[in-house]
Amino acid sequence: MARTVVAADLGGTHVRAALVEENGRITGRRDIRTPATAESHVILGEIAALLKAVASSAADAPVGACLASPGLISADEGKVIIAPNIAGFRNLVLTVPLASQLGIPVAIENDASAAALGEWRFGAGQGCRHLLHATIGTGIGGGLVIDGRLYRGAKGFAGEIGHTIIDPGGPRCACGSRGCLEAMVSGVAFAARARRLLAKSASPVLKEIVGYREPTSADLFLAAKAGDRACEAEIRHGGHLLGLGLGSLVNVLNPDAVTLSGGMLVMGEMFLAPMREAMFSIAYGPASGTSLRLSALGDDAGLLGAAAVAFERATE
Amino acid sequence: MARTVVAADLGGTHVRAALVEENGRITGRRDIRTPATAESHVILGEIAALLKAVASSAADAPVGACLASPGLISADEGKVIIAPNIAGFRNLVLTVPLASQLGIPVAIENDASAAALGEWRFGAGQGCRHLLHATIGTGIGGGLVIDGRLYRGAKGFAGEIGHTIIDPGGPRCACGSRGCLEAMVSGVAFAARARRLLAKSASPVLKEIVGYREPTSADLFLAAKAGDRACEAEIRHGGHLLGLGLGSLVNVLNPDAVTLSGGMLVMGEMFLAPMREAMFSIAYGPASGTSLRLSALGDDAGLLGAAAVAFERATE
Repeated sequence: MARTVVAADLGGTHVRAALVEENGRITGRRDIRTPATAESHVILGEIAALLKAVASSAADAPVGACLASPGLISADEGKVIIAPNIAGFRNLVLTVPLASQLGIPVAIENDASAAALGEWRFGAGQGCRHLLHATIGTGIGGGLVIDGRLYRGAKGFAGEIGHTIIDPGGPRCACGSRGCLEAMVSGVAFAARARRLLAKSASPVLKEIVGYREPTSADLFLAAKAGDRACEAEIRHGGHLLGLGLGSLVNVLNPDAVTLSGGMLVMGEMFLAPMREAMFSIAYGPASGTSLRLSALGDDAGLLGAAAVAFERATE
Repeated sequence: MARTVVAADLGGTHVRAALVEENGRITGRRDIRTPATAESHVILGEIAALLKAVASSAADAPVGACLASPGLISADEGKVIIAPNIAGFRNLVLTVPLASQLGIPVAIENDASAAALGEWRFGAGQGCRHLLHATIGTGIGGGLVIDGRLYRGAKGFAGEIGHTIIDPGGPRCACGSRGCLEAMVSGVAFAARARRLLAKSASPVLKEIVGYREPTSADLFLAAKAGDRACEAEIRHGGHLLGLGLGSLVNVLNPDAVTLSGGMLVMGEMFLAPMREAMFSIAYGPASGTSLRLSALGDDAGLLGAAAVAFERATE
């Protein structure tokens, strides 16, 4: 029988869980709404019930489980230190009580770090020795696989590429610094670019799409696709800056590949072409041997990332 | 008997070599002038003679040798691809012919990478699991130790932190990009800052020191120490930018420590205080558990770095 693990993806609205085989095949899916409470025993109870239900669908007992969570995670202590957008996830120790209820080892990992190991094991990063994975969504996250293992750093915070500074005079980031990658290229950043265009009355097309509500990154892209030059220029500039940021990291890490996932990739070549050009314009870039690859894991990236971490733990 | 290695530090003017024990004790030093020729057999002959002379001073045969060289090095192929400032060091395969002449394994390593392993083994990085080393001299170099081993990346170029971009609108770097760390904080960058001050007639003190020759980073520091506010502001700004660059890398790598060496450190707290403040102002910085440490290896950093690589190779 194939070995399996229980994987879960903790999100702002849903917790998705499933059984995952060593080849990445997903079975026994179950979802619950993310517990909307700060009571840790309620959260633990609901997640435990979910994981148990998934585990019971396995022919043989799963060899382990892992939760992928947004936010600041201490994998060593098995806890969520803080997860923005999930009120109850604050100094919440999950792994020890869950492991005792499930009777198998339970791990927790930052979702972007898990995604890096998921890409390496099941996705676009297969065959790499060293991998940098970047998720370009509402925010920007990242993870590192070094020598075929998830690299966590001294305190488990490694891979936070969204808060590398690429322009000290750039816009203020939610973290307090100026010009973080996340403040310049993420969904939040593209929405801010759209707001600035509207404030300057620089894009009638965008204005017509948005009306009087708050603009989103999707509006910016829609207007650009409709031929609006100002909106297209913002997307291209974002792609260019992301390329400089990733190219800088290629110079530091010289990975075999950079893999990309996240909602901003729907912008396609309008975003990716200037990104690629900037990334490989940087010193050592052309000689680095680093390839750029798009993720193919889609909505299951979180689950497969968590599964990859659970399998890594099970073979330690 | 203590095991020893032959270590050599290839520089623009001299090749320094010595025998190094496992505890970092240096004996049997010998230097030659860097061969000023493009004839590879002459270069090889002179370096071989130097290493042999050092090896012969050992009680027991050394267990290996390593050359630390500036420039682009292919450690796998044992060659210098290109070393700026050393004319003959271009596509020069050194390790295979030297090993056959010495009868022991010979390695070659980029000097900044070697320095990182040297700091980890003999210097300020002792006791760390993960280490980022940065040399802030005429240029800016860096190296990474991960899990107690030198991290080279896919093609051996990892650690090139001097060409991470921290301001896309910044001054042009020798590499062609704009706003590389090296273009903003190195000795070359501080000399350029001094030139700009002189061009604006913004510093009478600096003008008096420099007269009609080209200004250097040392002139800028001298003027700042003499109380010139404009020069001091340039040094502080450079320190601030370096801190943002290093802080960004702390977010990506979360090392146990960042170690620093290089000529610019003579600027002391005027340079280091704003650097430290900026580095730890960045998101995750305070929680990273990363300490900042100054190198204590001094002029022997290259030799000890080469020795550390030779010992790492010998125990593989």
